[in-house]
Amino acid sequence: MRVFLRGICIGSIISSILWGTASPAPGAEPHERATRPPNVIVIFADDLGYGDLRCYRHPTIASPHLDRMAAEGVLCTQFYVAACVCTPSRAALLTGRLPIRNGMCSDKRRVLFPDSIGGLPHDEVTIAELLKTKGYACGCVGKWHLGHLPKFLPTEHGFDRYFGIPYSNDMKPAVLMRDTKVVEEPVDQTTLTKRYTDEAVSFIRQSHEQPFFLYFAHTFLHVPLFASDDFRETSRRGLYGDVVEELDWSVGRVLETVRELDIADNTLVFFTSDNGPWLIKNRDGGSAGLLRGGKGSTWEGGMREPAIAWWPGRIPAGRVTTAISSSLDLLATIAALADASLPDDRTLDSLDLSDVLFDNGSGPRQTMFYYRGRKLMAVRSGPWKAHFMTQAGYRQPRAESHDPPLLYHLEHDPSERHDLAKKHPEVIAEIRELVARHTAGVEAPDSQLELRATRQPAEKPGGAN
Amino acid sequence: MRVFLRGICIGSIISSILWGTASPAPGAEPHERATRPPNVIVIFADDLGYGDLRCYRHPTIASPHLDRMAAEGVLCTQFYVAACVCTPSRAALLTGRLPIRNGMCSDKRRVLFPDSIGGLPHDEVTIAELLKTKGYACGCVGKWHLGHLPKFLPTEHGFDRYFGIPYSNDMKPAVLMRDTKVVEEPVDQTTLTKRYTDEAVSFIRQSHEQPFFLYFAHTFLHVPLFASDDFRETSRRGLYGDVVEELDWSVGRVLETVRELDIADNTLVFFTSDNGPWLIKNRDGGSAGLLRGGKGSTWEGGMREPAIAWWPGRIPAGRVTTAISSSLDLLATIAALADASLPDDRTLDSLDLSDVLFDNGSGPRQTMFYYRGRKLMAVRSGPWKAHFMTQAGYRQPRAESHDPPLLYHLEHDPSERHDLAKKHPEVIAEIRELVARHTAGVEAPDSQLELRATRQPAEKPGGAN
Repeated sequence: MRVFLRGICIGSIISSILWGTASPAPGAEPHERATRPPNVIVIFADDLGYGDLRCYRHPTIASPHLDRMAAEGVLCTQFYVAACVCTPSRAALLTGRLPIRNGMCSDKRRVLFPDSIGGLPHDEVTIAELLKTKGYACGCVGKWHLGHLPKFLPTEHGFDRYFGIPYSNDMKPAVLMRDTKVVEEPVDQTTLTKRYTDEAVSFIRQSHEQPFFLYFAHTFLHVPLFASDDFRETSRRGLYGDVVEELDWSVGRVLETVRELDIADNTLVFFTSDNGPWLIKNRDGGSAGLLRGGKGSTWEGGMREPAIAWWPGRIPAGRVTTAISSSLDLLATIAALADASLPDDRTLDSLDLSDVLFDNGSGPRQTMFYYRGRKLMAVRSGPWKAHFMTQAGYRQPRAESHDPPLLYHLEHDPSERHDLAKKHPEVIAEIRELVARHTAGVEAPDSQLELRATRQPAEKPGGAN
Repeated sequence: MRVFLRGICIGSIISSILWGTASPAPGAEPHERATRPPNVIVIFADDLGYGDLRCYRHPTIASPHLDRMAAEGVLCTQFYVAACVCTPSRAALLTGRLPIRNGMCSDKRRVLFPDSIGGLPHDEVTIAELLKTKGYACGCVGKWHLGHLPKFLPTEHGFDRYFGIPYSNDMKPAVLMRDTKVVEEPVDQTTLTKRYTDEAVSFIRQSHEQPFFLYFAHTFLHVPLFASDDFRETSRRGLYGDVVEELDWSVGRVLETVRELDIADNTLVFFTSDNGPWLIKNRDGGSAGLLRGGKGSTWEGGMREPAIAWWPGRIPAGRVTTAISSSLDLLATIAALADASLPDDRTLDSLDLSDVLFDNGSGPRQTMFYYRGRKLMAVRSGPWKAHFMTQAGYRQPRAESHDPPLLYHLEHDPSERHDLAKKHPEVIAEIRELVARHTAGVEAPDSQLELRATRQPAEKPGGAN
């Protein structure tokens, strides 16, 4: 799935088309162009389900800002994250690589915990690091969860600034950090969305004179849920709805800031979430809509997410795309837009979505690999999905193996109800070949998630302990 | 739930507000006003699920015409039909009365069959009959299923014309009728949606010089599914998607006709379906989206439906309403618009939705009674729903009783997952009182659905036999 052709500057050709630039002046080098590469804002919710926004037709949640974002941009109906839980999903988004390749998954511990001493390896190249090579200001606001020790923090992975919590909000000690320092312990979670938003807006205002990249990863809807006074007990969906509606407000403030600064015509904003709804949390968990399963599982509800892309004037307004696409693809897409070179010494799982975003194309992606920890549970190829193993997200101790695999036609049967394995052995045969090729190409390093402090107390976030 | 206050001409007051009429000229009587009451088109799909349109976020079905209709009008997220199967749902829509009151339900036979000799009683007042008193041309196109003997056909219930099939398309003999005559046997179902649409367009063209009412009840998505050559194998959702997309095309043609005739500013179009998706039909059955259950059951998926209202200039564009509303309410709403008097000698279950449609209000409806046959299975009061009995739509021989009832907060938990009966006995107590009041007020006539021919062959549709 390598998308970079070494030596051919596809990026710059695409960029000149995309940015509507005139040809460079005679004799001018491409890098002397006046046109600036676009700003990029990725807004990443936590545990938000496929069915939890009004623009994805939740019956009672109001999300006017995300609805407007979708109406002005493109809404995706077959967009996947690369893992069904937090840490590996985040690692995949920032590196364009499956967690099995970057060490950010494990069968023993599904995410990083406060006693973890591992983190995103330094030889991984993040979107921020790519964009730094093109002079971007890079800010990270919100939940990190890719290593809380000093050497793994955002500022060690290409970000100029960081403000947020280092792991999930149900983990102790619950701290708020600025750059590499703890600034609040325990963090007041009721105002977290507001403060994150202020920080994001401030970063945009301070950075917009140069190209910037903002990675804005919200703490919520991860439980425990908190909404600020302005939102508590205001939605028709209870506390969960209050928190979604505050998240929606936050998106609105970001977009409004972009509009106010008059940079909307040169700013790509992408919204999605890290994994599906945490169903076992009862009414504090969200809804995967018509999809089966939720967070923690490799059923569609665990990994198919709401996703909206917005760039007025560049992304045609009001479309819904059924193209198969993934958070893995953000890296290649953004690199193409910024004319940044992708690393050519490793396998990337990232495909350039320009065709989907700008030209309403069906896109380059035909496959998705559904890992749970280090186990390849299921594979999508075109409309077909084969489950070699299934396991509920939580509370089912062991995976169930399937031979032949369960086979669903996702475009006819998005809820994964009707197993067609017996009817289509030829599809299963093709998928088995795909799996063999894929597996042969995977070099899996040791897991970072299994590294833990050998004595208590473990090192604290930021290394304060 | 009586909405008509005898002697007070609420309708005409509302009408003058709604139609934007100037005050009548001095001395003019209200009936001398130049302004015409609006045309009304009700488009009724069959077995379409809550999740089966793109504007309700099916991932792969394209419904551009219904999407546009929603974008120009209002889309409902808590709209109910009054029964979970065909015949009683249709009877309720046309009469504004629960099937338990009009005899169109039974515990023995859920719908009318070809050997039935009953039908919608003549003392019931249909929307068509109401509108006839105001000079409307009334046309019925499509599936009737309220009695196929001559005395029960649409032309005996207020419609000037009829073209369609008299009952479900899986029943024999499969005939197509015009007015009271069989014109094709067996009917060619592959072109049925096209021919219905031609008929509907023709009726609109011929009738638009006077106010008209068109009740356009599609045969599909009832199985067996058929699409015309233009749509077969064209959708990404398989045959079911082909049929939805042809239905969507049909809606587009109706709306385009209204636009072409320049009557859009005086025409209310309402789209919904008779009940939820027929889940046991595998991939030929639809999706209830995030709702539990489907056709035949009193879970939300059986009775909550997609619903879109359109009237450019009168209904503000681009809204989503969470108001609780019902197909039962079309009668009172339309009567108010047409300034027609509602019958005052019977209990109606119909409430005027003008507030919801035109003023983005929360509407007058707070309750829904979920009947299965003659049994009251569940009751919604505000956000709460209590299930006294539950039963799968099909293949579960007996209902399961619940005491205390299962209690769900539908606005927090639309998928009916988290029973709160133990936490909220006070809500159950209130709902029990509501049930007692309701039940005391119901006079249930003998069922029309239990009447059947005592010898074979039964009388054929139109009485030809």
